[in-house]
Amino acid sequence: MKTDILIIGGGPAGIITATTAKNCYPDKDITVVRKESMVVIPCGIPYIFGTLNSVEKDRIPDEVLTKNGINLKVDEVVSIDLSTKTARLKSGEDLKFEKLVLATGSKPSVPPIKGKDLDGVFPIYKDPVHLREMLEWVRKSRKIVIIGGGFIGVEFADDLAKVGKEVTIVEILPHVLGVSFDEEFSLMAEEELRKLGVILKTGRKVTEIVGESGVEAVKLDNGEKIDADMVILATGAKPNTDLAESMGLQVSKFGIEVDEYMRTSHPDVFAVGDCAAKTDFFTRKKKPVMLASVATAEARIAGANLYKIVAFRKMRGTLGIFATKVGDLTLGVAGLTERTAREEGFDYVVGRSKVIDKHPGSLPGAKEIHTKLIFTRRGGFFLGGQLAGGITVGEIVNLVGFAIESGFTAAEYVDLQIGTHPFLTPPPTTPATLKAVQDALKKIYSLSR
Amino acid sequence: MKTDILIIGGGPAGIITATTAKNCYPDKDITVVRKESMVVIPCGIPYIFGTLNSVEKDRIPDEVLTKNGINLKVDEVVSIDLSTKTARLKSGEDLKFEKLVLATGSKPSVPPIKGKDLDGVFPIYKDPVHLREMLEWVRKSRKIVIIGGGFIGVEFADDLAKVGKEVTIVEILPHVLGVSFDEEFSLMAEEELRKLGVILKTGRKVTEIVGESGVEAVKLDNGEKIDADMVILATGAKPNTDLAESMGLQVSKFGIEVDEYMRTSHPDVFAVGDCAAKTDFFTRKKKPVMLASVATAEARIAGANLYKIVAFRKMRGTLGIFATKVGDLTLGVAGLTERTAREEGFDYVVGRSKVIDKHPGSLPGAKEIHTKLIFTRRGGFFLGGQLAGGITVGEIVNLVGFAIESGFTAAEYVDLQIGTHPFLTPPPTTPATLKAVQDALKKIYSLSR
Repeated sequence: MKTDILIIGGGPAGIITATTAKNCYPDKDITVVRKESMVVIPCGIPYIFGTLNSVEKDRIPDEVLTKNGINLKVDEVVSIDLSTKTARLKSGEDLKFEKLVLATGSKPSVPPIKGKDLDGVFPIYKDPVHLREMLEWVRKSRKIVIIGGGFIGVEFADDLAKVGKEVTIVEILPHVLGVSFDEEFSLMAEEELRKLGVILKTGRKVTEIVGESGVEAVKLDNGEKIDADMVILATGAKPNTDLAESMGLQVSKFGIEVDEYMRTSHPDVFAVGDCAAKTDFFTRKKKPVMLASVATAEARIAGANLYKIVAFRKMRGTLGIFATKVGDLTLGVAGLTERTAREEGFDYVVGRSKVIDKHPGSLPGAKEIHTKLIFTRRGGFFLGGQLAGGITVGEIVNLVGFAIESGFTAAEYVDLQIGTHPFLTPPPTTPATLKAVQDALKKIYSLSR
Repeated sequence: MKTDILIIGGGPAGIITATTAKNCYPDKDITVVRKESMVVIPCGIPYIFGTLNSVEKDRIPDEVLTKNGINLKVDEVVSIDLSTKTARLKSGEDLKFEKLVLATGSKPSVPPIKGKDLDGVFPIYKDPVHLREMLEWVRKSRKIVIIGGGFIGVEFADDLAKVGKEVTIVEILPHVLGVSFDEEFSLMAEEELRKLGVILKTGRKVTEIVGESGVEAVKLDNGEKIDADMVILATGAKPNTDLAESMGLQVSKFGIEVDEYMRTSHPDVFAVGDCAAKTDFFTRKKKPVMLASVATAEARIAGANLYKIVAFRKMRGTLGIFATKVGDLTLGVAGLTERTAREEGFDYVVGRSKVIDKHPGSLPGAKEIHTKLIFTRRGGFFLGGQLAGGITVGEIVNLVGFAIESGFTAAEYVDLQIGTHPFLTPPPTTPATLKAVQDALKKIYSLSR
């Protein structure tokens, strides 16, 4: 068999590479090969266990491929021969290609904790069979310990607490979300988690998972023992680079090496999504960011550049724009935090604001938005932003991301026209981002006096 | 008495000029003179009559001025002598100033309909005394006719219908919101209004308001008669330029003439907000836009430029970014509609998308977002955007506004990293704006082949 563009992996990165390629190169034959019978929405996984109460409801329909005339094979690529440009499938079939895209994703990073293989201990695989098993186990569990207080751990805790589970998060850092946010935002998230009844063991390490055949408890480094019917390992993920390594492509612990056009070290092989290494937008260092939104941005770029380089379509560096919801609080972050800015040696100023997300504040459901923006001290260029507030923060953070990625300065931003409405936004007198920009400008101005 | 900066008008434009000036010129003495005992949030006015059920709850607290060390006088400026830079107040006091800012706002534009002075017929003044009277009248009314189906009329209808009033909108254009949106979006708004039980008489003119001393009915140009206990005139507003004219400043029917720095024809007099004329960002024609968000943008610029021109702080042209909520539908618009683009002779292409505002779409409360973006055919520069969907549209439209104002092209936008989250945004595979940008790019690309 033969195809023009072979894409390995059926997650968001694979799908968007395929649809973009179809758009840009409509005459090419495109095939996606994936192992899973069905694709789950990765960011929806934490909500399978409470809100959705179903794996099937967290599904990306195959029609996004098939209705666009893209071939879909549920199979596994076991090896690639780059000299003949042929993929060998588990079914025995050989598939020739012109261009290859690796969208092989990530696999859970499981720490070597004693007891990690007990029944009831679950790493988070994006595989529907595994997730169905997990869901069964959640249903029969009362006490659940989540190891890891990053985004995924916190989102699991939020959703499980909402359906009445007794949830404990064990996090090795001093605070949950401690990698992505500055401390003041982590503290707000922790307050919400506590309101939901989640028990937080931060600054603590799990030394052992205890049990006979099934898990019974988790032991911490201070000797404490927490009863558990189930343990979820939300301890991060690592790029799945097995196939890339077997092909002799350049690979580091951060993933498959790619350039700005998402090309690997072989001219006809591209890599996108969790399996591809990321370069931070500002620090220019490699960083482990695994976000579907980054994966799809990369996929759009790869899909466009497969046969001809479209010079303007390139990855200028990974920002990592996250948003999450904990209880009634929405948190968002784009670009550098203050901690990273300081640690990496940036010369920066901070602007802050605290405004109401509706106007008047007496409207039902009005919430405070806390905004913290980071700028270069000279020039006032956007470096990063963090927000906490109501659900509109999920889109406001994209305004900050846009400002960062387009190289905007505080001076350019401060007079933007920003639309407002009583039920939808902060008042016209104090848009959240703009008020923080004004605060920063005072510091940038005073410097130049 | 003497002050350095005298600001006439205490609405959003006056307030933000004052606070910005305080920020930029901390040593200057600033005085705001306004007539009203209390300032209402203008965009909150429609919600006084249902949701808030109170005028007092729709208040901008005076502390935004007083806590910043800005003087507030509740009084009226009756005349200005520019030769001596002195304002004469109604109380008899004379107030000398160095710089003067006119933020005198607008007044309702009342059409010369027979019966307009009957009891129970209300234009919309931003005066709390008037609004309290209106609220009393609403409370005792069952059948309310709103003349004018623009933003304000539609928002009044939405809020009054929600508290059980029998509401009819009479609109002279073929559709409600017909000035601000293209037809397909107006139709969506009309569908929501009908769901709320609002009766729509579009393409109809009121010929007479009928009644003895109080209003009893409204007569339309097709002979139809609609019973009414109350009539609200949502027929627009006109700039309040009385004082400016008396001072001999340059004034047109669009308002006080100003330059990009918000200076009037007199070097020490600035004008901001509804009383100042607006120049459209693209058509460069004067246009009647009365939005608090535009007023505050102008105020920030005026406040910064009062004593020294800060060259980067200028109004590049009025975009007019609106958002509104009708029933469960949020609508937003920024920049040109397709109709205006066509009528004004722009060479344009349209990009559209229809996506779900949460992911998976099976999450509770998920709504479809319709996006329509307008670009220059050559170059692919953003000209405008319209959205309809859930409440996050109120912030997404600001992304479009930002793209327009910063001179972004579709090609630059299409690979932006856009953060996503299941409860907060469309899926990473299909951000609303990005999907519409992709649609437009196909047309822009095919042109260049």
